[in-house]
Amino acid sequence: MQQMRQGGPPPSPSCSSTSDCFPLSPLNTAAAAAAACGSETSDEPQKHEPTLLSRMRSIVIFYLCYLLCLCLSVACVVCVCVWNSRWRGGFAWDGSALQFNWHPVLMVTGLVVLYGNAAVLYRIPLTWGHNKLPWKLLHAAVMLLALILSIVGLCAVFDFHNAKSTPNLYSLHSWIGIAATALFAMQWVVGMGGFLLPCSPMYLRKLLKPVHVWMGIGILLLSIAACISGINEKLFFVLKGNSGGVQPYSALPPEALLGNSLGVLIFAFGLVVLKILSNYEWQRPDSRPEDMAYTPVLQEENE
Amino acid sequence: MQQMRQGGPPPSPSCSSTSDCFPLSPLNTAAAAAAACGSETSDEPQKHEPTLLSRMRSIVIFYLCYLLCLCLSVACVVCVCVWNSRWRGGFAWDGSALQFNWHPVLMVTGLVVLYGNAAVLYRIPLTWGHNKLPWKLLHAAVMLLALILSIVGLCAVFDFHNAKSTPNLYSLHSWIGIAATALFAMQWVVGMGGFLLPCSPMYLRKLLKPVHVWMGIGILLLSIAACISGINEKLFFVLKGNSGGVQPYSALPPEALLGNSLGVLIFAFGLVVLKILSNYEWQRPDSRPEDMAYTPVLQEENE
Repeated sequence: MQQMRQGGPPPSPSCSSTSDCFPLSPLNTAAAAAAACGSETSDEPQKHEPTLLSRMRSIVIFYLCYLLCLCLSVACVVCVCVWNSRWRGGFAWDGSALQFNWHPVLMVTGLVVLYGNAAVLYRIPLTWGHNKLPWKLLHAAVMLLALILSIVGLCAVFDFHNAKSTPNLYSLHSWIGIAATALFAMQWVVGMGGFLLPCSPMYLRKLLKPVHVWMGIGILLLSIAACISGINEKLFFVLKGNSGGVQPYSALPPEALLGNSLGVLIFAFGLVVLKILSNYEWQRPDSRPEDMAYTPVLQEENE
Repeated sequence: MQQMRQGGPPPSPSCSSTSDCFPLSPLNTAAAAAAACGSETSDEPQKHEPTLLSRMRSIVIFYLCYLLCLCLSVACVVCVCVWNSRWRGGFAWDGSALQFNWHPVLMVTGLVVLYGNAAVLYRIPLTWGHNKLPWKLLHAAVMLLALILSIVGLCAVFDFHNAKSTPNLYSLHSWIGIAATALFAMQWVVGMGGFLLPCSPMYLRKLLKPVHVWMGIGILLLSIAACISGINEKLFFVLKGNSGGVQPYSALPPEALLGNSLGVLIFAFGLVVLKILSNYEWQRPDSRPEDMAYTPVLQEENE
């Protein structure tokens, strides 16, 4: 899930390499970039300074968005953990409601927060001057961790349902959630084979890239829809107001406010990730469609 | 909500005008475009044919996506109408459950289907050769219709709740849904003032455009999340299996299958709309960031 835009026009001819175009990359300094950018084709030197300024501004805005993304990540994980430990009684693995509590925690942490952060990894300008291979491996590793947490999160709810003889996979929430996890598993295996194995041919990478990108975005949107419908469903289940001391959902007790706020935070996180992924200027330069050689990673990355 | 990509590189220098770049536009024929595209800067005439072919392919793929978008639109509206008329008893405006039935029908039709179709209006290549003003007016008119249907849909559920003395706006579904409608109303008013009034200055349009685009995408995603959580909630409410002859949701009776399928169709529709909006090649050429003069519409459009 490295880029969102496909089939765009070629890049500006004014910057010939990563270090020319991205002054905050470790390959270069801002002063050197100021001299290099635009010097090849432009005959209007007075225009260089605004170009550099706009690039610097773009990078500053990126880091603000990325900071927001990290803050929302922490807020989502803290919220879902506090909700399930403080209001839902904590955690266990015994088929009880305490085992169910792992489900929201692991799905939000894995399928949303880790997944979203792994997706935007290539966008961090400080990584652009480095060999791409370690970042590809980190992307694959964080995605694998996200996938494992999601699968354990599904096991938690299946065990809980089975212990209560409740059927699985009947609600729209479960359909959306299982589709997200199944597509994620498929995406990881195909991504691993297609983009990390040295034997993967160029034409296959070229064919896979747009599918990988769009499947990645689709999975993120499925995850967010599953989380929002799941939180809504859970709050209606547990806040019925018919047992002593429990206020109904409609009275908006503190637990309902926390759950609703978690949903809002998850949505905001998804929107920030989508914003980071869709901005062409924030793509790693050698991952842009017009720059990709599509040679096997283990050959191209270590040159 | 005319485009998704912002801040990209300048366009390829090989096509100097709309009619050069888009051979299926009424301004031009494929043969004329074949001669025109790339002729200004390229000194390799043998490369012209593949460029034209790739543009033709892009337009064919657009129309396939657009056809899918239209089919999903019809399927969503048919599904939600059949669900509420066949399984939920039909429609009325008397504070009863029959009044509530207007809510899903109007929200899906207005906030999802009409909204999504109005958003992709500018992408239809057959409109590119025409004056943009009528399409802007159509975009604004369909969005207004979508907004009115959404507001009436909200009135339906508020009336129903008030008649039963049920509180409003406490669930996560309602928070997401009201945020979508409120932002939509704000977006329409600001869009009308910013892009359709002749007195709106250039700098304001330039400032508004990326906000309009991102707010538009955010509203679509909010609408889809609201629909999926709402369908899920409604099916749990009505399919409890405790009244004679009604199977529980967990037994997946035909109504549950239809409701779940409606959720899947709405998600698929949203993904297709997002795909159409995010492809740079499918943007109306004079709406692309690098081509926009940002002069007041009523002046620029009628030149």
